[in-house]
Amino acid sequence: MMKGKERRTVRKMQSGRWEAERRMERVRQHLIPEAAKQLEMARCGGGKLRMRVDSRCLSNYMRGKHREIQEKVFDYYNANPQLQTPVEISKDDHRHLCMSQLLGLVREAGIRPLRYVVSDPSKYFAILEAVGSVDMSLGIKMGVQYSLWGCSILNLGTKKHKDKYFDGIDNLDYLGCFAMTELHHGSNVQGLQTVATFDPITDEFIIDTPNDGAIKWWIGNAAVHGKFATVFARLKLPTYDTKGLSDMGVHAFIVPIRDMKTHQPLPGIEIHDCGHKVGLNGVDNGALRFRSVRIPRDNLLNRFGDVSRDGKYTSSLPTVNKRFAATLGELVGGRVGLAYSSVSVLKVAATIAIRYSLLRQQFGPPNQPEVSILDYQSQQHKLMPMLASTYAFHFATTNLVEKYSQMKKTHDEELVADVHALSAGLKAYVTSYTAKSLSICREACGGHGYAAVNRFGILRNDHDIFQTFEGDNTVLLQQVAADLLKQYKGKFKGGTLAVTWSYLRESMNTYLSQPNPVTARWEGEDHLRDPKFQLDAFRYRTSRLLQSVAVRLRKHSKSLGDFGAWNRCLNHLLTLAESHIESVILAKFIEAVRSCPDPSSQAALKLLCDLYALDRIWNDIGTYRNVDYVAPNKAKAIHKLTEYLSFQVRNIARELVDAFDLPDHVTRAPIAMRSEAYSQYTQYVGF
Amino acid sequence: MMKGKERRTVRKMQSGRWEAERRMERVRQHLIPEAAKQLEMARCGGGKLRMRVDSRCLSNYMRGKHREIQEKVFDYYNANPQLQTPVEISKDDHRHLCMSQLLGLVREAGIRPLRYVVSDPSKYFAILEAVGSVDMSLGIKMGVQYSLWGCSILNLGTKKHKDKYFDGIDNLDYLGCFAMTELHHGSNVQGLQTVATFDPITDEFIIDTPNDGAIKWWIGNAAVHGKFATVFARLKLPTYDTKGLSDMGVHAFIVPIRDMKTHQPLPGIEIHDCGHKVGLNGVDNGALRFRSVRIPRDNLLNRFGDVSRDGKYTSSLPTVNKRFAATLGELVGGRVGLAYSSVSVLKVAATIAIRYSLLRQQFGPPNQPEVSILDYQSQQHKLMPMLASTYAFHFATTNLVEKYSQMKKTHDEELVADVHALSAGLKAYVTSYTAKSLSICREACGGHGYAAVNRFGILRNDHDIFQTFEGDNTVLLQQVAADLLKQYKGKFKGGTLAVTWSYLRESMNTYLSQPNPVTARWEGEDHLRDPKFQLDAFRYRTSRLLQSVAVRLRKHSKSLGDFGAWNRCLNHLLTLAESHIESVILAKFIEAVRSCPDPSSQAALKLLCDLYALDRIWNDIGTYRNVDYVAPNKAKAIHKLTEYLSFQVRNIARELVDAFDLPDHVTRAPIAMRSEAYSQYTQYVGF
Repeated sequence: MMKGKERRTVRKMQSGRWEAERRMERVRQHLIPEAAKQLEMARCGGGKLRMRVDSRCLSNYMRGKHREIQEKVFDYYNANPQLQTPVEISKDDHRHLCMSQLLGLVREAGIRPLRYVVSDPSKYFAILEAVGSVDMSLGIKMGVQYSLWGCSILNLGTKKHKDKYFDGIDNLDYLGCFAMTELHHGSNVQGLQTVATFDPITDEFIIDTPNDGAIKWWIGNAAVHGKFATVFARLKLPTYDTKGLSDMGVHAFIVPIRDMKTHQPLPGIEIHDCGHKVGLNGVDNGALRFRSVRIPRDNLLNRFGDVSRDGKYTSSLPTVNKRFAATLGELVGGRVGLAYSSVSVLKVAATIAIRYSLLRQQFGPPNQPEVSILDYQSQQHKLMPMLASTYAFHFATTNLVEKYSQMKKTHDEELVADVHALSAGLKAYVTSYTAKSLSICREACGGHGYAAVNRFGILRNDHDIFQTFEGDNTVLLQQVAADLLKQYKGKFKGGTLAVTWSYLRESMNTYLSQPNPVTARWEGEDHLRDPKFQLDAFRYRTSRLLQSVAVRLRKHSKSLGDFGAWNRCLNHLLTLAESHIESVILAKFIEAVRSCPDPSSQAALKLLCDLYALDRIWNDIGTYRNVDYVAPNKAKAIHKLTEYLSFQVRNIARELVDAFDLPDHVTRAPIAMRSEAYSQYTQYVGF
Repeated sequence: MMKGKERRTVRKMQSGRWEAERRMERVRQHLIPEAAKQLEMARCGGGKLRMRVDSRCLSNYMRGKHREIQEKVFDYYNANPQLQTPVEISKDDHRHLCMSQLLGLVREAGIRPLRYVVSDPSKYFAILEAVGSVDMSLGIKMGVQYSLWGCSILNLGTKKHKDKYFDGIDNLDYLGCFAMTELHHGSNVQGLQTVATFDPITDEFIIDTPNDGAIKWWIGNAAVHGKFATVFARLKLPTYDTKGLSDMGVHAFIVPIRDMKTHQPLPGIEIHDCGHKVGLNGVDNGALRFRSVRIPRDNLLNRFGDVSRDGKYTSSLPTVNKRFAATLGELVGGRVGLAYSSVSVLKVAATIAIRYSLLRQQFGPPNQPEVSILDYQSQQHKLMPMLASTYAFHFATTNLVEKYSQMKKTHDEELVADVHALSAGLKAYVTSYTAKSLSICREACGGHGYAAVNRFGILRNDHDIFQTFEGDNTVLLQQVAADLLKQYKGKFKGGTLAVTWSYLRESMNTYLSQPNPVTARWEGEDHLRDPKFQLDAFRYRTSRLLQSVAVRLRKHSKSLGDFGAWNRCLNHLLTLAESHIESVILAKFIEAVRSCPDPSSQAALKLLCDLYALDRIWNDIGTYRNVDYVAPNKAKAIHKLTEYLSFQVRNIARELVDAFDLPDHVTRAPIAMRSEAYSQYTQYVGF
């Protein structure tokens, strides 16, 4: 077995190699400034007949505008091997290391995330992405500090709060938590039971945990590092007769939880460690119980509702529900970040699995060399539609980040609605897909995929909770469906439509007519690869699902009530939401193909886009067949073409993963190294 | 945070509680001897109209005949809390603990597994199951020692080997490894490159690792504990001219790897630790390189091929391929064990997820209490078909174990063929299904599913490799498909059919006729729940897939050759294999329903069986629709009935998981405790 010291040496050597490689890449980047990049891209095409992809060209098209700060992040951690997370580490050590990593980033590398949250959210997300690729625990810990704790101050507080807390949060003096979830209530935030009672005598709120079910649970930063928490609690105000209390609904309060000097929990605050988790063990999640904890009235985050000295409630918003919606609405950034980060995880996993599948050989024709396992149809079936989806999600989520940034600037109402529904849908759809894909990648890489050093276990364990936190996926998809239904009801009465849904108006008309029995039989490749056919098919399905669920809901609500009817149609509603999101992703992908300036990159993207579209149609072929939107001969042709496109994508798979532009120090898995993978792997275990 | 001491106290308390509970159960069992059990079962029915299940009755029907020795295993570990694996443990500590657990079982509890391997394999599998539920690492470590290392001696060796090694293996003096897999070769065992050259001068074999790719990799027991290894290597014998060497193919050799006294690696043997894995870190997998390691001629495991003193090769089997097949054929027990253990893992996971889904409440109709999340259609959709599948797999795999035991007694040729194909298919199908289900369970339990103490992470990480070891699932399914094709070719020439495939003869005839346009539209519940309809549908699909792939293979092999044609049809072949296995599972399930003596248990099983069948048909509705085996109205009716059956199963879900008869000390997750789950959970974190 390799001794600790040797392993450190190997790690340092690797780190050195990565450093060198990365520097060369940077030099290359510097030699090609923006204008030259455009030129290069125009040149790359070359009008070749056989499909060839220049991964650099494609990469230039894909690369976000914040690559530079990501490089800075990578540089910092590469230069500090002691800050790199080893494959095996105990929970307590991991938390300590994770805190050091964050402190290093902010205080040594000088990156101040909260400023970007305000000035340039897309840059903030780029930092989050880079940091998450160093260690996902670090990404989440940073997210807790800035997206959750920090943004709760920025978005739910007012000037007095920003003045007091901004710098301390940004420089990590004020480490904080976001204490929303309780033991008994996660998804149903309106059911939270922690209480904040106003005491008009002392001008304070008294925070209480009324029962065990109301213990704040899973609170990041709480178990070890946090000094403050934004606590969500029911605001209770004395009524006029001063005997009763009226419940004003859930509000957010700043509660100091640990002494600034001694770091001991403050009186009335009981903190326990939620313990070892499936993943993300670098993040210290804790449970908090409050016993008559007094905080000044100023600690109410009072942007959407305030309490005066004499205990009177004021708000710019008329109802409890509107205030609650406004409060939660401000938290949408977290979902945007998760959808975006989930794609990064998928890129890393797909890259490792595909590079290894190109390297690994097993079996072959008699008396001939063995073949790469990516040459097997079954392996292509596992990985090529996944690669296509990764590209599809890339464009959809970068677009979402842009929309979000714009929304934060303009506060345009239509954009707000769009970003809300889109972030819910994409977060749910993308994280579910990534979670499944991580298991597929592990399995596709066989035994070597089971070595921890090859990353799939860690990626899967860390990413797993993306499906749950910042909104359970099943709940988020219902929000999307509810939104669709609202739009559906509104639009036929002539209301306007949010941008993302506007396609529905048109396709609903198509749906109301019967499927065309002639086009249902068209099976030519040109037709199947026509974006119009693909989009029509996706949208037809969504429209049909929407129309039919609306009818079913109306029918069932008579006997079961609204709640019962919704539940009776729940699977249908979830399918509708997924179908809609798939349509939105496809539309974005088609747009991205159209806008690509370099013909050879464009051809590669078109291929991927077709595979994404046809694979999805084939996966749900039953639905299409049931309404004869697709005739049997066409169904067969779609299946055949999907397999053929997978094969074609396989032929440029190496270039396609190279275009993700993930340096070896990000992928890290020895089996996915761009050169001498096997020998890096044997060296790792000590040969 | 809970201190180490407190945690130990809590663990001890839990252990005490479990102990008490288990004792009561045992007392109850003793009070109801076998005859009374039958009586009780006959009584349980009671002819109630509303479906009610007595979980004890159902459990009696499900329970294997080796419950007693499983109780003994549980008793032993419950009485020894120091042998229970904590939620967080380092790799090195885990390996040490795992070894202590195994030593305790054999030397203190006095269970001698190798004897059961010989005398009563189904008892051996029952022990393996119980031990695996204590810690899956322990189950696998035991499997390495007995199923792999032990059975290689029993099945590939001859009397001299058994005489020499049996006792040492059984009492753990001779810890050993099974060194088959190499860095470059896992699935393609015939491509192994380690060499065993006979030296006629010294009467020895010389074992060599000719290149890095031939390093033995992932060898369980090698990194720390093993003294011996059964090494698979190409046997090379001097040719007559004594200048060349002839390659006799892969054979197995006993190679001592560590000194019996000092435990140091023997000269010429380089051992490294394969390092941290995704799961099963209690098992010490290592990598082995051999440099001219000399072993006596007697160390060849010579059941299927021998070398005489003068270097002549003799064998009862005529060709290299037949010997290779016979050698690998003896390893089928491992697959049987994995399929069987995988179902146990699925039972534990389903039990935890379902109990928690009954406990957890979230949202509800306005002004009414919140509802259990298992009342949501979406949660039923995730978990109820899974519960039905768990039952289906239970009957299929217990049947497989029985067949295997019988095969080891009778060596009946037909049974051998049957067990081979069935174990390959069930191992692949069941482990893939369980792996996916573990992720679904985690996600279905939201945030609390992410606490390590609630088990899903550990179960998933440990079980994950079940899909790969003892035969990669994708490779095993191809074996099933190849077998089907062989039978298909043979049978139409009038050959006999292995038991499991015999249905194909009949349904192939049905297939050759067109689907019946009248029955294709029948949509009544009686019809859809008729086992004949269900089995016909499953078998029709399999027959159709078999017939069509045979045609495609013939067509493609002309231009692409056999290897190319196989690859061109690979996805089709895998679907065929899965479809066949699903048919076999359904047939066994229907049989188990029919044989159940207690009417109320029978009714519950019938419900589960219908859900299993219709859910599978709906999942592949595209295929049925494409050939108009099922008309659109029928497809809709199947979907509707599947949702309704899920709802009905939900109503007896608690009893159905209780019938798995898993005591709390096996499920262990606080959120799944049968009483006061939430408070056990809060206590666990220290409240």
